[in-house]
Amino acid sequence: MRNPSETSLNRRRFLQATSLAATSLWFGSRNSLWGQEADKRAVEELRQTLLIHSEQPLNAEPKLSNLVEDWLTPIKQFYVRNHGATPTVRVADYQLTVEGMVHEPLTLTLAELKDRFNLTQTTATLTCAGNRRREFSQIKKVGGVQWDAGAIGNAEWQGVRLSDVLKKAGIQDGAKHVWFTGLDQITERSQTFPFGGSVPLEKAMSNRDNEPGTLLAWQMNQQPLTAVHGFPLRTVVPGYIGARSVKWLGKITVSDRPSPNHFVADAYKLVQEESEARQKEPIYEFPLNSAICVPASGERVRGDKLRVRGYALAAGKPGRSLKQVEVSSDDGETWKPAEFLGPQRDFCWRLWQVEVPVGAQAESLLVRATDDQGHQQPRTVEWNLKGYLYNGWHEVPLKQG
Amino acid sequence: MRNPSETSLNRRRFLQATSLAATSLWFGSRNSLWGQEADKRAVEELRQTLLIHSEQPLNAEPKLSNLVEDWLTPIKQFYVRNHGATPTVRVADYQLTVEGMVHEPLTLTLAELKDRFNLTQTTATLTCAGNRRREFSQIKKVGGVQWDAGAIGNAEWQGVRLSDVLKKAGIQDGAKHVWFTGLDQITERSQTFPFGGSVPLEKAMSNRDNEPGTLLAWQMNQQPLTAVHGFPLRTVVPGYIGARSVKWLGKITVSDRPSPNHFVADAYKLVQEESEARQKEPIYEFPLNSAICVPASGERVRGDKLRVRGYALAAGKPGRSLKQVEVSSDDGETWKPAEFLGPQRDFCWRLWQVEVPVGAQAESLLVRATDDQGHQQPRTVEWNLKGYLYNGWHEVPLKQG
Repeated sequence: MRNPSETSLNRRRFLQATSLAATSLWFGSRNSLWGQEADKRAVEELRQTLLIHSEQPLNAEPKLSNLVEDWLTPIKQFYVRNHGATPTVRVADYQLTVEGMVHEPLTLTLAELKDRFNLTQTTATLTCAGNRRREFSQIKKVGGVQWDAGAIGNAEWQGVRLSDVLKKAGIQDGAKHVWFTGLDQITERSQTFPFGGSVPLEKAMSNRDNEPGTLLAWQMNQQPLTAVHGFPLRTVVPGYIGARSVKWLGKITVSDRPSPNHFVADAYKLVQEESEARQKEPIYEFPLNSAICVPASGERVRGDKLRVRGYALAAGKPGRSLKQVEVSSDDGETWKPAEFLGPQRDFCWRLWQVEVPVGAQAESLLVRATDDQGHQQPRTVEWNLKGYLYNGWHEVPLKQG
Repeated sequence: MRNPSETSLNRRRFLQATSLAATSLWFGSRNSLWGQEADKRAVEELRQTLLIHSEQPLNAEPKLSNLVEDWLTPIKQFYVRNHGATPTVRVADYQLTVEGMVHEPLTLTLAELKDRFNLTQTTATLTCAGNRRREFSQIKKVGGVQWDAGAIGNAEWQGVRLSDVLKKAGIQDGAKHVWFTGLDQITERSQTFPFGGSVPLEKAMSNRDNEPGTLLAWQMNQQPLTAVHGFPLRTVVPGYIGARSVKWLGKITVSDRPSPNHFVADAYKLVQEESEARQKEPIYEFPLNSAICVPASGERVRGDKLRVRGYALAAGKPGRSLKQVEVSSDDGETWKPAEFLGPQRDFCWRLWQVEVPVGAQAESLLVRATDDQGHQQPRTVEWNLKGYLYNGWHEVPLKQG
């Protein structure tokens, strides 16, 4: 099996793919004028609807009250979590390569991908592993983007099944993982390398009844991907943290081990200290979670009842679904079950609403979700260094009068 | 505007499209060896799952008890309603033309269609206007395929929006209808001509929230269309009788009037006598309907309770949905509401079940559906010459003991 330095190989392939080896302008690195320009334009547009955490790389989330307007999140309300500048990829130059432990490596243009494989669509919620990181920082400061609860969104994704493409390439015996490598260029610790993800082969090949598994998607909500969401092609891994749904996908590598890419091998792990990272498993599934989106934090209460709205998400494991979402206005003494709005679908969030009494002594609202197997969100979550997977009861303070 | 003889034009275009003008073998006419061979193979395969009404043209429906196993009807359980031999179309030779009252006529290969337009998916129930025709014949014999209640199915369709393709061509002022012409060849009244459909322009252009309107689909339930279901491309018109979802689509014509094709101008109309047809409007929407699929007609009753299952369908008008399905085992004296199974989606059926008491005097079961605007299926339906749109209460006789 081939297992060369991912960084150099990807860089070479990217040069080949873009046919622009002579012009370094094309690189979507932090120093690329093009990428910066693309991001500048995106920032101006997204500032209309999103709260911008950082412009380089672009990280932004919607206002929570807007987020729960629609079960299918409009593209403009969809959080953006990038690690480097947004690459500018021309379709005419674009190629996807499939290599590693396969019988027949593939090189596919976007048109070939559309023409040679069956089309499919899946609805899936993506959520950043760092969603609600802000709440970890309230315990003890953690680095990284200080996400509120808006680093989540639910969209319809159109594309082809990863499993179909892998079957076409033919998987060698002994293969166990599938790596995804982006066409972006990230500079971290004085190294420049592309973003990478990795999923177990079983996940890559899984297709449930009437529900495709991992997708190679070129559309989001029936529209071509925008630049910041991965144009022209990205992976969508239903049930997994957003970091596994790699944008600007350039290369798929079948291997006997998880990707050595920084974002699989080091980052996106639950550790107390940096030194533990290499021993820990990568995070794959997102956890059971919920958040109150209306009213907003610190909103003034008038009257003795409040209509509360929010989202909830079952853990990203096959077969998990939400049984109940409850809201408390008396610090968890009593709970009122919320009503679900909209459909129940695997790996998709549910929106909910409930009217709760708010006496003069009500200081905050709490929400917690329970799944059909009896798992319930914990009140608090053990702190971790990178601030991932916060899923304690979500609390929204109220102002009386 | 161009409005030439549709038959001759289509024949010419078909010859061009297939690049096989020299070999008449390619025609899917009733006399075509190829079409007959394709149908023979299809018949042998479909005989495993469907009841074959006729082999040339192929017409077949599933057993009712199988039909309600799945909300999404498997391809093998999906009724087939053809009017001529199944044409054998090679993708390499295939082209779709868009012409008539457009600013820029288009000629598109399947690959171009996939590459130039956004992908979309819709779930839609198709049902033959002649579904349940058998029940008209019990009043007074009508011609045509003697369908039981199985000429209906619900599938996911993948393709592109008709509206996107028409927008690309540019619609001229004054256009009001869109014609679809198939690549099949039908011999009737000693003439040979292709199957044709027609929809008002408004329907062709309508796209609802998160729900595409009329589709040009090359896939059914995530698989390429089979030959009998319209390979390589068909229209899918949600809410309309199946005849408007034209298979083996070769040509789209924008016009100021409905298609003059026999299956729009003469057939698929509600008439008492043949002579009335030209004055009548074409049938477009399917009606509110329901049927009992389990138990089967004449099934022996054991015990004093029966679990009854079936399907129901709201009328194919925008915004209609089912409110209630009721079953009676005492000839309509009392009704028991059924429980809906599976999702509610526009232009899609719902499956239902209910347990009803069956006393020793129960001779049959009846079902009726009511929509959210209060429309209810009638007990009986006025007879019409062609036996279309039977939607009276569906009755299933029982055998006692």
